[in-house]
Amino acid sequence: MRVEALVRRTPVTISPGATIRQAAEVFAREKIGLLVVASSISPVKAQAVVSERDIVRAVAKGNALGAQLDTIATKKLVSVKRSDRASKAVRLMTENGIRHLVVENDDGTLFGVLSIRDFFREAKLLQGFLRDESKEFHGVD
Amino acid sequence: MRVEALVRRTPVTISPGATIRQAAEVFAREKIGLLVVASSISPVKAQAVVSERDIVRAVAKGNALGAQLDTIATKKLVSVKRSDRASKAVRLMTENGIRHLVVENDDGTLFGVLSIRDFFREAKLLQGFLRDESKEFHGVD
Repeated sequence: MRVEALVRRTPVTISPGATIRQAAEVFAREKIGLLVVASSISPVKAQAVVSERDIVRAVAKGNALGAQLDTIATKKLVSVKRSDRASKAVRLMTENGIRHLVVENDDGTLFGVLSIRDFFREAKLLQGFLRDESKEFHGVD
Repeated sequence: MRVEALVRRTPVTISPGATIRQAAEVFAREKIGLLVVASSISPVKAQAVVSERDIVRAVAKGNALGAQLDTIATKKLVSVKRSDRASKAVRLMTENGIRHLVVENDDGTLFGVLSIRDFFREAKLLQGFLRDESKEFHGVD
């Protein structure tokens, strides 16, 4: 399975000049866990990312919420190509302890964001657990 | 597989009188996604939950960060018993679109929090994806 088969929606981007509060507004509205910081002029390339956790950390530190997003954004991107194998994405998430990956087209432009939830939706994984249940139900161990 | 086999750590609780900012501090320190609002006097029972997303929403709405946590906490708990099947937890998360569940002991006291990540760590799930890769490597489809 390739990464591109798992990505469910077009990525939500935000300009580097936006504020922390504006980012929080986008998170609340879009119900996503990762925002890609990018210029809106194509070709769109990910410059940085901001997670919900980054917003929470800013609150914890008492940062001004009107401060520019790039004061809290992560510039070191962890990304995969859309044509990469899903197993590579699993490995990167696990190794880096993160829940989202930036997914790029093969030319390095932004394709989307892969979330740990996207894997979870994948029928095969759910089936593993449902199979367990069925085994228990039928008394097999 | 039972829920209790998947829960990895003791739950992190916070008092209902804490502020939104204090909750953000706990999230940042503990690297968790869900805080259980509970009195610290045993027997500890979950009264409500606060997610990282609730903090982000409070920022988006411009809530005062010194306000009490119970202004943003979710009182309607989605929970499982520690002895419930993992498949029930999967179903509850999927149906409710949530990433965490409160896990109770059979007497209703707090056992822990189950995160979508706890499933992901489970070797069986990872193996599914790694097996896919291996098949592709060997040219099987």
